[in-house]
Amino acid sequence: MGLVLADDLLGRGLQRIQREIDATFDAILEVPEDSRAPLVDAMRHAVIGGGKRVRPLLLVTVGEIYGCSRASAVRAGCALEAIHCYSLIHDDLPCMDDDDMRHGKPTVHKVFGEATAVLAGDALHALAFDLLSDPATSSDPFIRAELVHTLAIASGHKGMAGGQVMDMAAETTEFDLHSVTRLQQLKTGALLGAAVEMGAILGRVPNEGRAHLRNYARDIGLAFQIADDLLDHEGDEEKAGKALRKDAEQGKATFVSLMGPEKAREQARALSEQAVGHLCGHGSEADLLRALARFVVERDR
Amino acid sequence: MGLVLADDLLGRGLQRIQREIDATFDAILEVPEDSRAPLVDAMRHAVIGGGKRVRPLLLVTVGEIYGCSRASAVRAGCALEAIHCYSLIHDDLPCMDDDDMRHGKPTVHKVFGEATAVLAGDALHALAFDLLSDPATSSDPFIRAELVHTLAIASGHKGMAGGQVMDMAAETTEFDLHSVTRLQQLKTGALLGAAVEMGAILGRVPNEGRAHLRNYARDIGLAFQIADDLLDHEGDEEKAGKALRKDAEQGKATFVSLMGPEKAREQARALSEQAVGHLCGHGSEADLLRALARFVVERDR
Repeated sequence: MGLVLADDLLGRGLQRIQREIDATFDAILEVPEDSRAPLVDAMRHAVIGGGKRVRPLLLVTVGEIYGCSRASAVRAGCALEAIHCYSLIHDDLPCMDDDDMRHGKPTVHKVFGEATAVLAGDALHALAFDLLSDPATSSDPFIRAELVHTLAIASGHKGMAGGQVMDMAAETTEFDLHSVTRLQQLKTGALLGAAVEMGAILGRVPNEGRAHLRNYARDIGLAFQIADDLLDHEGDEEKAGKALRKDAEQGKATFVSLMGPEKAREQARALSEQAVGHLCGHGSEADLLRALARFVVERDR
Repeated sequence: MGLVLADDLLGRGLQRIQREIDATFDAILEVPEDSRAPLVDAMRHAVIGGGKRVRPLLLVTVGEIYGCSRASAVRAGCALEAIHCYSLIHDDLPCMDDDDMRHGKPTVHKVFGEATAVLAGDALHALAFDLLSDPATSSDPFIRAELVHTLAIASGHKGMAGGQVMDMAAETTEFDLHSVTRLQQLKTGALLGAAVEMGAILGRVPNEGRAHLRNYARDIGLAFQIADDLLDHEGDEEKAGKALRKDAEQGKATFVSLMGPEKAREQARALSEQAVGHLCGHGSEADLLRALARFVVERDR
């Protein structure tokens, strides 16, 4: 995937999950031989062969720490990635961010038209909950229902979708650091939090045993977004595979515009170290989570 | 709701479910006091005070025949209606059908803008699965997971969303009666089928006891769509609360254009009677389902 990774453990982990997510979507999304073909082609365009798969890797790694089967976790990871990808399709629409490129490819509406893009997003949204509620993901209905509930709340108006509307408001209203933090906790943090929570559900971790995982997710979520703002500020469009510096053009408040790049970088690193600190009760089985916490702030795309 | 109903049982049934669905959405969708307010306002605009609530009435009636609590069924009915309403919001967008009026009110994107309309649809989509997987809907996780699975499949690329893409193809391709029937079975029929299926799930009807309900749903689904085509052909825009005769303008094949209005009306009535026939094993507890089967072909909006 062209990522320069100092950490071999993480590099192997990302490559493996990327292969598994692609293979699962390829198997699930069979293109029908009727006029629905463009819909499924558009869904495949959005979910196969793009993205770092950070969310599924988080979910699978937490799940495996607690003994959940990898196959179950990968299916749940696909559900999470289906939600993430549907939100990108809709976010890229002309009436939203109006982006032409995503993951180094033309966006879904550029290739398939706007109407099919809206519907492909909607169909991926439904696919996520189809996957999670399928007995093939977990034979335990309690786990299936809890996975659905966690992801539905994290992606709805109290989570990701709420954060996206706050993000739109940030274009016309002055946001301070507190508001930007709240916005990002919803827009990006909710789904990263769901990744860790879903891994814990699959691993049958009781609610009271999840606090350190939630703290870890909160810290890397914020670090991830600060790093994103830094990449948007000083990154390379070709490596990023998408247009950059749109926030500054729109005069939108970001961590970088509010703190300055130096302070922002410092803060991201501090959060990353703090995230690693929450894992002190774990041994080497959490090394991938530690590497991931460092990766989210050091990545170049 | 201004409906002229010969049948008092049905009239009372519709009024009651309309009140219950409105009250439930009003309680669930509290408007937050921050920049997410427009999102929740847009969601409320779409789901409160509009629509006939045929799908929730079907779900609740089937559920009650088999002894499910009304409160549970109403919550599941809200989930179903949330899916129906999100699909209408997205369907009305300029890049889709570009409609200005829905249920006699301006469409969501006309009032709140396109970006908020896309996100309000997405947030209602998530809310549906949040509701179904919530222990408040059913204390039995198996029922929760089965409700989610049924609705996710019915609304996704193998159901409603697939039918909507076929519908787009019908604008540029010649569709025959077989293709139009298949299209409508997905676009409208899948969600009506889910309504009946979800009622049966809540009523703990085993899979092998659901055949007559599925047949009933299939027949009223088709009758419903033929009646919709007839209304589009000869109905009153003011009563309908939306623009009519768009299919004919676009030269799109419908049951009416393929069969002629007389034959179409005959077919809708025959399907409605056939639907009633599937209920012969039930007594008066299914009278509302019988009235509903007749209503879907006789309604004037």
